[in-house]
Amino acid sequence: MRGVVMHAPGDVRVEDRPDPRIEQPTDAIIKVSAACVCGSDLWPYRGIEKLEAATPMGHEYVGVVEEVGSEVTTLKPGQFVVGSFWASDNTCEICRAGYQSGCVHRVLMGTIGTQAQYARIPLADGTLVATPEVPPADLIPGYLAASDVLGTGWFAAVAAEAGPGKTVAVVGDGAVGLLAVLAARQLGAERVIAMSRHESRQKLAREFGATDIVTERGEEGIERIREMTGGLGAHSVVEAVGTQESMMQAINSARHGGHVGFVGVTHDVALPGLGLFGALVHLHGGPAPVRRFLPDLMELIGDRTIDPGRVFDLDLPLDRAAEGYQAMDERRAVKTLLRP
Amino acid sequence: MRGVVMHAPGDVRVEDRPDPRIEQPTDAIIKVSAACVCGSDLWPYRGIEKLEAATPMGHEYVGVVEEVGSEVTTLKPGQFVVGSFWASDNTCEICRAGYQSGCVHRVLMGTIGTQAQYARIPLADGTLVATPEVPPADLIPGYLAASDVLGTGWFAAVAAEAGPGKTVAVVGDGAVGLLAVLAARQLGAERVIAMSRHESRQKLAREFGATDIVTERGEEGIERIREMTGGLGAHSVVEAVGTQESMMQAINSARHGGHVGFVGVTHDVALPGLGLFGALVHLHGGPAPVRRFLPDLMELIGDRTIDPGRVFDLDLPLDRAAEGYQAMDERRAVKTLLRP
Repeated sequence: MRGVVMHAPGDVRVEDRPDPRIEQPTDAIIKVSAACVCGSDLWPYRGIEKLEAATPMGHEYVGVVEEVGSEVTTLKPGQFVVGSFWASDNTCEICRAGYQSGCVHRVLMGTIGTQAQYARIPLADGTLVATPEVPPADLIPGYLAASDVLGTGWFAAVAAEAGPGKTVAVVGDGAVGLLAVLAARQLGAERVIAMSRHESRQKLAREFGATDIVTERGEEGIERIREMTGGLGAHSVVEAVGTQESMMQAINSARHGGHVGFVGVTHDVALPGLGLFGALVHLHGGPAPVRRFLPDLMELIGDRTIDPGRVFDLDLPLDRAAEGYQAMDERRAVKTLLRP
Repeated sequence: MRGVVMHAPGDVRVEDRPDPRIEQPTDAIIKVSAACVCGSDLWPYRGIEKLEAATPMGHEYVGVVEEVGSEVTTLKPGQFVVGSFWASDNTCEICRAGYQSGCVHRVLMGTIGTQAQYARIPLADGTLVATPEVPPADLIPGYLAASDVLGTGWFAAVAAEAGPGKTVAVVGDGAVGLLAVLAARQLGAERVIAMSRHESRQKLAREFGATDIVTERGEEGIERIREMTGGLGAHSVVEAVGTQESMMQAINSARHGGHVGFVGVTHDVALPGLGLFGALVHLHGGPAPVRRFLPDLMELIGDRTIDPGRVFDLDLPLDRAAEGYQAMDERRAVKTLLRP
């Protein structure tokens, strides 16, 4: 089959790779309908995360079940499925508490590589959620978004306790930040402030439900949020970048007693103890337990209540994956969809 | 009046200070029945926190109302009252949300100095809670504990979401840690693990409701908590020390999705971003909003359900305050009560 392999920073190729096979009786093989490039794929692309060897890429996916292992009981060939970037059994104590990304048997899909024609999905019963029927083509991007960026943005908004009566500020205007705006609004937030300097992203944020746009960053951004909230700070803040500046901007934009949900992968970040102590906020985040939210999100997508697929502004055949990485690296695209 | 003044690290004196007067119409003056030395008073005593000038000390207090300002409506002379180390109006939006330590009009009692015969209490209506009657002498230490260490330990246990069915680990065996043990048990926790190496403190932890003692620290302590919780980590962890090691021990002793409540003042702490991201925990802490809990805690003390005053293992007249500081500095005493 054809699949994306990263050989070195900036060097992404589509190559022939071995077809995946059932390795464990709990595996399924899916024919990938669509995959995409994640902001976190840019870390090794930019040389910030070290690549040990040529690496198959991709951890977001939707597809049709091709084959199931002997112990898979809830899925059958022909079903359209969505899964998250962590495979999880969905039965352990951590999964049952809603933290499938911390499942005791979890497998990181990034080690498998879903930017390919086929993919092996471990712990298929726990990981995959099927739609009632194979969806129409125009819903594919939405379901694909649920696999990571929507689920991650949703988790961030939930972690920030977005809800009725709340003012929610979102730091970061990438796909996750934009979908956190959508999530906050769906969760009933009264006011959703998108922090963005890019006109096209501001526009999408407005369409997803942002009530206000703040273009300032850092100390000025914090000051602006305080001005807009009677000097108190936002009830809820989503952090969807992962830098020192964005984390501190998020923490200090929240009011005392407020909630910060962080989902940007925090490279080179060190949170100062006294700053965190004095902020008196709730801080929750990490790898999003997307599986917790998938059934509900898939229903909202299927009945066309939400259209998270709009974050994909570049749609390419798999063989042109390198272009998709480059466009995201140069911030010409918010998110690239790849069709095998 | 007589009052404690710190002149330099290790140099604590009891001196004549001016009697406090009503300065704002919302002030009250109390005759201090008892005050005490806080773990945080040891930071400047040890030279870790810089003293700018000779400083009146103390922020924990119980006493009898002597005089009230013209705008004080809920208190009258003769009432026995307990207050927290932050004076707060208890009416602003932050207070109403239960974060009185972040009140928009807050005043830090440490700048006033309650280790003295009298103290001025700002925002008296919001800050002070009166008992129905002047309590018997043997309850004074308990009420005094509510002013800070009990309220802080309680907040830490609440922030860690201690409750029925939960396993709670407590890092730190000072007065706050010990009272977090008591709080966790009162909140219904199934299992409360005190992390302590000191026999007398272990004993008190047991009396306060600890079901298990762990003597290991750091990586070994984390390993031990994991062994005791089926490899998962504790549901809830209280951090009551404030060092880099104790914060990381707390975060890494919690399971994915678990809750860490931190109340140790985090000097020289920097939380690594990726470590926090990967831990996938809830983190909440800072200066405890003791006022939120005072009415309930005072009821539990008044009806003798709990006896938090037992953390005071040194009881001195105010004039011997220097001995009290020294005993705590040398860890010969858990907490020193001072009687003006």
